[in-house]
Amino acid sequence: MSTPIRVTVWNEFRHEKRNDKVKAVYPDGMHAVIAQALNAAGGMTVRTATLDEPEHGLTPEVLAETDVLTWWGHTAHGDVKDEVVKRVQERVLQGMGLIVLHSGHHSKVFKALMGTTGNLRWREAGEKERIWTVSPGHPIAQGVGEYFELAHEEMYGEQFDVPQPDELVFLSWFQGGEVFRSGACWTRGRGRIFYFRPGHETYPTFRDANVQRVIANGVRWAAPHAQQAYNCLHVKEAMEPIPAQT
Amino acid sequence: MSTPIRVTVWNEFRHEKRNDKVKAVYPDGMHAVIAQALNAAGGMTVRTATLDEPEHGLTPEVLAETDVLTWWGHTAHGDVKDEVVKRVQERVLQGMGLIVLHSGHHSKVFKALMGTTGNLRWREAGEKERIWTVSPGHPIAQGVGEYFELAHEEMYGEQFDVPQPDELVFLSWFQGGEVFRSGACWTRGRGRIFYFRPGHETYPTFRDANVQRVIANGVRWAAPHAQQAYNCLHVKEAMEPIPAQT
Amino acid sequence: MSTPIRVTVWNEFRHEKRNDKVKAVYPDGMHAVIAQALNAAGGMTVRTATLDEPEHGLTPEVLAETDVLTWWGHTAHGDVKDEVVKRVQERVLQGMGLIVLHSGHHSKVFKALMGTTGNLRWREAGEKERIWTVSPGHPIAQGVGEYFELAHEEMYGEQFDVPQPDELVFLSWFQGGEVFRSGACWTRGRGRIFYFRPGHETYPTFRDANVQRVIANGVRWAAPHAQQAYNCLHVKEAMEPIPAQT
Amino acid sequence: MSTPIRVTVWNEFRHEKRNDKVKAVYPDGMHAVIAQALNAAGGMTVRTATLDEPEHGLTPEVLAETDVLTWWGHTAHGDVKDEVVKRVQERVLQGMGLIVLHSGHHSKVFKALMGTTGNLRWREAGEKERIWTVSPGHPIAQGVGEYFELAHEEMYGEQFDVPQPDELVFLSWFQGGEVFRSGACWTRGRGRIFYFRPGHETYPTFRDANVQRVIANGVRWAAPHAQQAYNCLHVKEAMEPIPAQT
Repeated sequence: MSTPIRVTVWNEFRHEKRNDKVKAVYPDGMHAVIAQALNAAGGMTVRTATLDEPEHGLTPEVLAETDVLTWWGHTAHGDVKDEVVKRVQERVLQGMGLIVLHSGHHSKVFKALMGTTGNLRWREAGEKERIWTVSPGHPIAQGVGEYFELAHEEMYGEQFDVPQPDELVFLSWFQGGEVFRSGACWTRGRGRIFYFRPGHETYPTFRDANVQRVIANGVRWAAPHAQQAYNCLHVKEAMEPIPAQT
Repeated sequence: MSTPIRVTVWNEFRHEKRNDKVKAVYPDGMHAVIAQALNAAGGMTVRTATLDEPEHGLTPEVLAETDVLTWWGHTAHGDVKDEVVKRVQERVLQGMGLIVLHSGHHSKVFKALMGTTGNLRWREAGEKERIWTVSPGHPIAQGVGEYFELAHEEMYGEQFDVPQPDELVFLSWFQGGEVFRSGACWTRGRGRIFYFRPGHETYPTFRDANVQRVIANGVRWAAPHAQQAYNCLHVKEAMEPIPAQT
Repeated sequence: MSTPIRVTVWNEFRHEKRNDKVKAVYPDGMHAVIAQALNAAGGMTVRTATLDEPEHGLTPEVLAETDVLTWWGHTAHGDVKDEVVKRVQERVLQGMGLIVLHSGHHSKVFKALMGTTGNLRWREAGEKERIWTVSPGHPIAQGVGEYFELAHEEMYGEQFDVPQPDELVFLSWFQGGEVFRSGACWTRGRGRIFYFRPGHETYPTFRDANVQRVIANGVRWAAPHAQQAYNCLHVKEAMEPIPAQT
Repeated sequence: MSTPIRVTVWNEFRHEKRNDKVKAVYPDGMHAVIAQALNAAGGMTVRTATLDEPEHGLTPEVLAETDVLTWWGHTAHGDVKDEVVKRVQERVLQGMGLIVLHSGHHSKVFKALMGTTGNLRWREAGEKERIWTVSPGHPIAQGVGEYFELAHEEMYGEQFDVPQPDELVFLSWFQGGEVFRSGACWTRGRGRIFYFRPGHETYPTFRDANVQRVIANGVRWAAPHAQQAYNCLHVKEAMEPIPAQT
């Protein structure tokens, strides 16, 4: 249990280079802030990877050494190579945890694992978001109170086209009138997946202490207990006697 | 409620043409037997479609007029065009029901909707399968007793690589020593999906009265109540007043 | 399928007799309005029962002829006899559907079936409630749009102490800042249970067309397909040969 | 994370005193063997409690110092005082984990938390049980292979009258022809509950290495992250402005 969890923080890292407003909030990229928070949380060794690195920084070697991958993408989902998407999906099915952040709801990786569109309702009005804990006994809610607030965020509203979560941890209230399933858990193969809603690029959401705590809790929850693929197993011999066919 | 459910029974229809043993069991193809059973069940209008028809018989027009699609494939999953797979998946997300039969666990359509490999353990030894009802109050179990038996079937055993079912209806016991989650329900988008295990091509499984009843129940359960896609909806105006940002 | 569903609408029926404000909204009791709405929905035969009738109107004979029971109680949960609670619970486990309305979250019947306290956060401020559909393909959401509103309602907020629903159909947004899982489904034994949040006694909520539609949909969804108790079944003979112990 | 989990192993402890066959297998009671195994697993401090102690050994003080309670009972479920049952239930809702073993399926504690009868099919024929892992990525399956066997056990078969598990971890195959959901997880309030099937008093099941491993894994999974009751919270002031009623 004392072995550190090996985390790879993946970021599209395009907005931060092209948009001055975003650059002002995240001068070194969102991944730098997320990685720093996870390092501070303890019990993890953290590296980062970004879209414009070779193979998006997600070579087979990197993934083989990753226990949990976090994913933020938005403007360039289409630029992620199908080959890398498939590689990530296979690793999740083998047991790698996956934390999908905010606009990652439309990433190829998330859609391939969910089987749905990830569509939702949205509005960019800098409104208040209040995130309510609905599963207070869940490990991902550990240390988070009854609710916490983000003063300004993009709105995501229902209907959110995802399979019903195995466990629903957080629900969001938005000032403008919507609600959203903001913290949701699934298992695919041996891998655990946590989707966490907040994190629009123009707000300092990833610097928020509650958001950082939830992501760290998510990483701990998603860390694999076993890493091995399901096989399609042809067993020629029966385990028990089968009488001859009549 | 009195409008008939429009069913399309899809079959790969290759084994029946090439293998004398299978041809002897299903001279007109498995789809003919399944379609006949559904017609006899009442309240449905049934058509069939097979792999080697143009567009596999699944044109946009056919799918638009299909409330529930049943799927049997095995030896030629790879021959199903990705374009048709995508078309079927989109229709399911809009509300079309899908009944996946036996070796359809490895079909592209099922894997795309599940996000997993569909891998499992298997053995072809003609052993006895006893199918236990675990959710006796579920509509798909209506009229099925505590259990029913198939004298000779292919074995499918756990671990079955699928997302945990939203509802588990049947469990199988195999003479050779394995167990399997044999009747399982999921929802994806607005569409309902039912996987039902039995149906190896060399046995007259689709002529079994219990199997026919379960498939008919599955069709009724999966018939859509509403058919409309989730949209990604950009709402520029808030529903409630949002104070100006400070 | 054409047999009408036999519904019993149960109401505490105390507020309406004692409180002029409530009497003004529901002069004949809430049960009269709910029963009228279900009758108008069609396909049901509806009777009512109230707390102050002998055995609360829920004799073994009445329950034996009830397919779906709806339950509204608030001020007198403690007056419901344990014997009747047990009788209702047993009927649900045998297959009778149960629709629990609003303050019924604290009824003995609901708590006995859930195993939890049913506790929640609440405020009586006559605020606006907006009810969002999160499972648009679910039969209970049939005919309900993306959302509907109630101009004035009591607020119920998370954390709601119930087992995670098998299916979550509606989420509420409240003007005062809270969210709530407003439409939730469970199965217990062979019986289906639907909890629906709105319905404070001082507002004409049960006269609202959307509320009436949801309750009617809930009754149809909860109507049993089979009614029979689970047995504790001692089977002395094995189904398959068991070698002698060594 | 390094604080030991405080476990209380509860045992009815009647069979062992009255039945020579059972006494031969568990001379100091099943609880002694289970407690020893958990001590050996590490990271836990373990005490025991039995039915015939004052308050069944489950005083408020003992429960207040218990993170996870394991429960084995069979012949004397009716002797457990309702007051203690209520106390245990309340502690589970506050966050205490509960591991229910074998015939505990009919204990008052388990039935109160499930809301169902716990009924099942059973046979005492000393037959072989093969326990299959269906959720290999689940923490409770950690270190357990694809399956393990018990040479002789009592049979429990479906239909098992419990709410559909939140997570299904193990399925049993029985030589005599039945199947059973043998390892199942639920959350009630803040507490986690794990039911594990094997453990008939006449067999040395609790001395089996795999069984011991699963129980230890279950304790770790059920250990609480937060311990606090849900409150019924009357909030008089709104968090957001509510316009005056019109």
